[in-house]
Amino acid sequence: MRRAMASAEVGDNVIDVDPTVRELEERAAAVLGMPAALWTPSGTMANLIALSVHLKRGDRFLAPKNAHVLNNELGSAAWLAGGMPEALEHDGGPGRPKPETVAAATGARGGPYYTLRTTLLCLENTHNAAGGAVIPPHEHAQLLSTARQAGLQVHLDGARVWHAAVALGLPPAALTVGVDSVSACFSKGLGAPAGSVVAGSREFVERARRMRQMLGGGMRQIGVLAAACLVALDRVPDLAEEHDKARRLADGLRELGWSADTPETNIVLAPVADISVTLESLQAQGVLALPMAGKVRFVLHRDVSAADVDEALRRIKAGGHP
Amino acid sequence: MRRAMASAEVGDNVIDVDPTVRELEERAAAVLGMPAALWTPSGTMANLIALSVHLKRGDRFLAPKNAHVLNNELGSAAWLAGGMPEALEHDGGPGRPKPETVAAATGARGGPYYTLRTTLLCLENTHNAAGGAVIPPHEHAQLLSTARQAGLQVHLDGARVWHAAVALGLPPAALTVGVDSVSACFSKGLGAPAGSVVAGSREFVERARRMRQMLGGGMRQIGVLAAACLVALDRVPDLAEEHDKARRLADGLRELGWSADTPETNIVLAPVADISVTLESLQAQGVLALPMAGKVRFVLHRDVSAADVDEALRRIKAGGHP
Amino acid sequence: MRRAMASAEVGDNVIDVDPTVRELEERAAAVLGMPAALWTPSGTMANLIALSVHLKRGDRFLAPKNAHVLNNELGSAAWLAGGMPEALEHDGGPGRPKPETVAAATGARGGPYYTLRTTLLCLENTHNAAGGAVIPPHEHAQLLSTARQAGLQVHLDGARVWHAAVALGLPPAALTVGVDSVSACFSKGLGAPAGSVVAGSREFVERARRMRQMLGGGMRQIGVLAAACLVALDRVPDLAEEHDKARRLADGLRELGWSADTPETNIVLAPVADISVTLESLQAQGVLALPMAGKVRFVLHRDVSAADVDEALRRIKAGGHP
Amino acid sequence: MRRAMASAEVGDNVIDVDPTVRELEERAAAVLGMPAALWTPSGTMANLIALSVHLKRGDRFLAPKNAHVLNNELGSAAWLAGGMPEALEHDGGPGRPKPETVAAATGARGGPYYTLRTTLLCLENTHNAAGGAVIPPHEHAQLLSTARQAGLQVHLDGARVWHAAVALGLPPAALTVGVDSVSACFSKGLGAPAGSVVAGSREFVERARRMRQMLGGGMRQIGVLAAACLVALDRVPDLAEEHDKARRLADGLRELGWSADTPETNIVLAPVADISVTLESLQAQGVLALPMAGKVRFVLHRDVSAADVDEALRRIKAGGHP
Repeated sequence: MRRAMASAEVGDNVIDVDPTVRELEERAAAVLGMPAALWTPSGTMANLIALSVHLKRGDRFLAPKNAHVLNNELGSAAWLAGGMPEALEHDGGPGRPKPETVAAATGARGGPYYTLRTTLLCLENTHNAAGGAVIPPHEHAQLLSTARQAGLQVHLDGARVWHAAVALGLPPAALTVGVDSVSACFSKGLGAPAGSVVAGSREFVERARRMRQMLGGGMRQIGVLAAACLVALDRVPDLAEEHDKARRLADGLRELGWSADTPETNIVLAPVADISVTLESLQAQGVLALPMAGKVRFVLHRDVSAADVDEALRRIKAGGHP
Repeated sequence: MRRAMASAEVGDNVIDVDPTVRELEERAAAVLGMPAALWTPSGTMANLIALSVHLKRGDRFLAPKNAHVLNNELGSAAWLAGGMPEALEHDGGPGRPKPETVAAATGARGGPYYTLRTTLLCLENTHNAAGGAVIPPHEHAQLLSTARQAGLQVHLDGARVWHAAVALGLPPAALTVGVDSVSACFSKGLGAPAGSVVAGSREFVERARRMRQMLGGGMRQIGVLAAACLVALDRVPDLAEEHDKARRLADGLRELGWSADTPETNIVLAPVADISVTLESLQAQGVLALPMAGKVRFVLHRDVSAADVDEALRRIKAGGHP
Repeated sequence: MRRAMASAEVGDNVIDVDPTVRELEERAAAVLGMPAALWTPSGTMANLIALSVHLKRGDRFLAPKNAHVLNNELGSAAWLAGGMPEALEHDGGPGRPKPETVAAATGARGGPYYTLRTTLLCLENTHNAAGGAVIPPHEHAQLLSTARQAGLQVHLDGARVWHAAVALGLPPAALTVGVDSVSACFSKGLGAPAGSVVAGSREFVERARRMRQMLGGGMRQIGVLAAACLVALDRVPDLAEEHDKARRLADGLRELGWSADTPETNIVLAPVADISVTLESLQAQGVLALPMAGKVRFVLHRDVSAADVDEALRRIKAGGHP
Repeated sequence: MRRAMASAEVGDNVIDVDPTVRELEERAAAVLGMPAALWTPSGTMANLIALSVHLKRGDRFLAPKNAHVLNNELGSAAWLAGGMPEALEHDGGPGRPKPETVAAATGARGGPYYTLRTTLLCLENTHNAAGGAVIPPHEHAQLLSTARQAGLQVHLDGARVWHAAVALGLPPAALTVGVDSVSACFSKGLGAPAGSVVAGSREFVERARRMRQMLGGGMRQIGVLAAACLVALDRVPDLAEEHDKARRLADGLRELGWSADTPETNIVLAPVADISVTLESLQAQGVLALPMAGKVRFVLHRDVSAADVDEALRRIKAGGHP
């Protein structure tokens, strides 16, 4: 990846001629099944741009509880993109509402002028705070058709959509059917240093490009990062190994008496009695984890081997957790 | 009231010398137990000003589900005041969360710089969408102490705080103990044509005055409306009659087979099978009601007599509802 | 006026049925030559609503230097309506740019996506900070056609458009030809306690109504104020007397050695050596004036008689100004 | 530079542990004479963050006409940072106002609550649209002391501060004396692919870090870009060569009958009769230039040699310009 970065052909990407960025945007759009895509410095900015393009001031949007756009973006969906959020229960499975919950939350259409208007549904696949939970295609389709009937646009936070695709054995484009926009991330599991895309119609991308510039996300010869993202894109199939290692960790934790959830992808969530005590103790053992939705979150990636997982389990056992 | 308006002494209230407005602001501050108060054109603006003063961009605030600031102000708490809302279940009673729900929703304090920060709790007493439900003083005190321990400021949407005070037989100031700001309304039940106040510390009111001007809420010789608000303030004790009439209506509805909630103040909520059918049919009979939180909402006020209630019940019976 | 207010027929103007407000809005729309109008609590809100409807985030708008939307609305044109202002020199006469200045400031159309876009021209007739200066119809027409050729929308801040009409001996509608929106004020010179309108196409007014509600400007039984505004509207022809008195004051000041501008309407601007010294001294003599654009501003209105003007001049002479 | 990027040590810079970014931020802070610095994806974001931290909603800020924050950032200083701009004439020299112009534009302090408040002065050194014009230290000092006396904070857009330092033979820190914040850029003349810093007090940088995250500018293992920025920082002294080449180009243009300004740094501005005709013709000859402030702007950088300048002049001569 560093080699690709060192030899990347670049141009001024604000004036939109960096050839490596263009290649990445075209490949990402194709893989995600969308007409066009735009490189962004971060997944947070990709989501922020999408919401800013979709929402008018004061529009209400729906998202599953603990979604990244609700909990992990410093409120910019509200103050900057202008949306009034409504958090939906995960009553359709981990990380997702039932279609009827979406329908009920949308409210009546065409009310009087002083009525809050719901205009957007945000989905997240996989859902980070729900432990990397996957929305399968038939549920996605039902949620999409419900949203359409209710007149809602749909944005998919697909930062981890690669994991969902690998877990399901489907191409990523199978998980974006019908959405108006999707964000996807090349850092995190895929290991690029930084970089995301937001994809949608050509008109969406033109508006997104202007919003990116407004936010200061227009970067110059950024082909050096795009080159890394292209390498990352080739690695999507490798994610299956991360999922294996996640199951290995979860199984090991359960053997040690933890009540770890069964991972669907590369995230293991484990509820514990006192989260700060546990995190401190893990840190003392050299095992890295973060809090997420009130649980301990372990994330597997390409730089953690199966042997590392076993070593972590050995230390956790020695440490006497949970 | 019209007579008071016709003879009101006025001045330019943008430059802050309208004597009638000043009298109203001083009396309202005293009645609400706050150091200072500011007249506003509407209760919506009163809440919007308070949230704009309390919140920094992206701050999270907590409010009970279906609160006016969440559902009835066109998302301005988010896009304009800059807050990221979190709706709390009414698990402490109609219209209010349990203290422990507030504590759990607040999250840890002092997290890293990329953490959403919760800084404000909004309460609503009485809670409109919960059928005019009253928060009694001991629950208010528990919610306030929880908020304080969590480092939250507290805003009380007291548009209907007069009703809560009358229902409890307490002065309104007993229901604002410890809050940083409170809004209260002179139209609605009290019958002034328009006008609200937002009250708080002197420093809060100075900042609120500037925000009111920014929003275009600075009005000139508005003593003519303040005069009506002063008359309205004298009428607070009369609200007991509205509460009697609300109970009369609810009792009557139940006799007719409706499942109307028992009203605590002047609002009767009645769940029905199909809300649009029922509302249409009521309208055909000349009985006025609006939808609220998925139920039919009847509101009693000084211009509806006990005889009017009986007449409405007669018509509803004749109409064959629900 | 108080009598009209005391007997006004009213309704709930948030739900849009107050009959007196409706009458005012219809009459104001007709007088201003626009398809529809909307009552607002203040002229500041009327302008803020218009700019919010016209501008997208980051759009540049042009306005003559010292315009009310630039200097007297606490920056809400920028932070709330989202516009990037460009102040134009008064090179076309007091309070107005030349058409070629508008054309030059607009810049090229259809630049690349990272180009600031100019989309709106704001005019102000009469221009307050330019001493109530009038834009005559042929200049208005030239400015409008320049704006149209440059693809700009046009908003007219017509808070004092009544004065311009009277000074020119034309109906107000002659001064709004071709604009997309116009605000006009019933307090100030016309003497209503408070109240303005913003007028435009029916679609504009529907969007404006929603923005008014967002800002908290939706007021309930506000027919009591609208009744006063209707009386005010009948008084437009009387403004000629204010203009006479302004000329009387200016003439008198010049006789006393002041360099007062010759007033076109009801405002007299007088440059002085040290503005705070002069204002303090005037106040000590009981003569009311405010600073405006670095000069002393005297405003004439119906409650100041010609005898009052003479008395003011007598006191100023006694005080030894300037 | 590519080599440095390929071997950079990296970490997760959102959680703030990327060692190469830390090294860059510390070195940049030292070179700029500020207590602390923060890496940003672009100079536009660096300025946007600084203005967002300094300004409260509706605050007025002063900047020289055609400043980057006014003309080249899509209005985000207004709609996002919340500032109401006031453009100042370049009456103190190219790219800068006189101190007395700053003082006059600031207005009186401590006016009533409904007064626009001026709180910030933005300077730009070198000033891009003024042809890379340098503000010398004694003028900087006078502007700073005027701003301080007027109670203004000062932000320096130092995207090209390296050029100013080289042109003056001074360390960059000599040009930031007294400012509250400074942005500086490593792409453009210094040749890094992308990357800027914004520097100020430690408290400023903590607030800036949060704002960067809000805008989606938090990037992960961004040490690969920071490594390039570190190389760029070592190249500052080389900029003298660009300035030589700029003078060579300007001299040559004048010999050909152009009225090119004498460049102070690496930018040559040339007024022409019809800018689009000239730009098209230059492009046909393979000479790259862009429009800026109504003139043709040529920029010199390390990848354009003296021989390239001569070749450009030869082609321009052949093309028969201007």
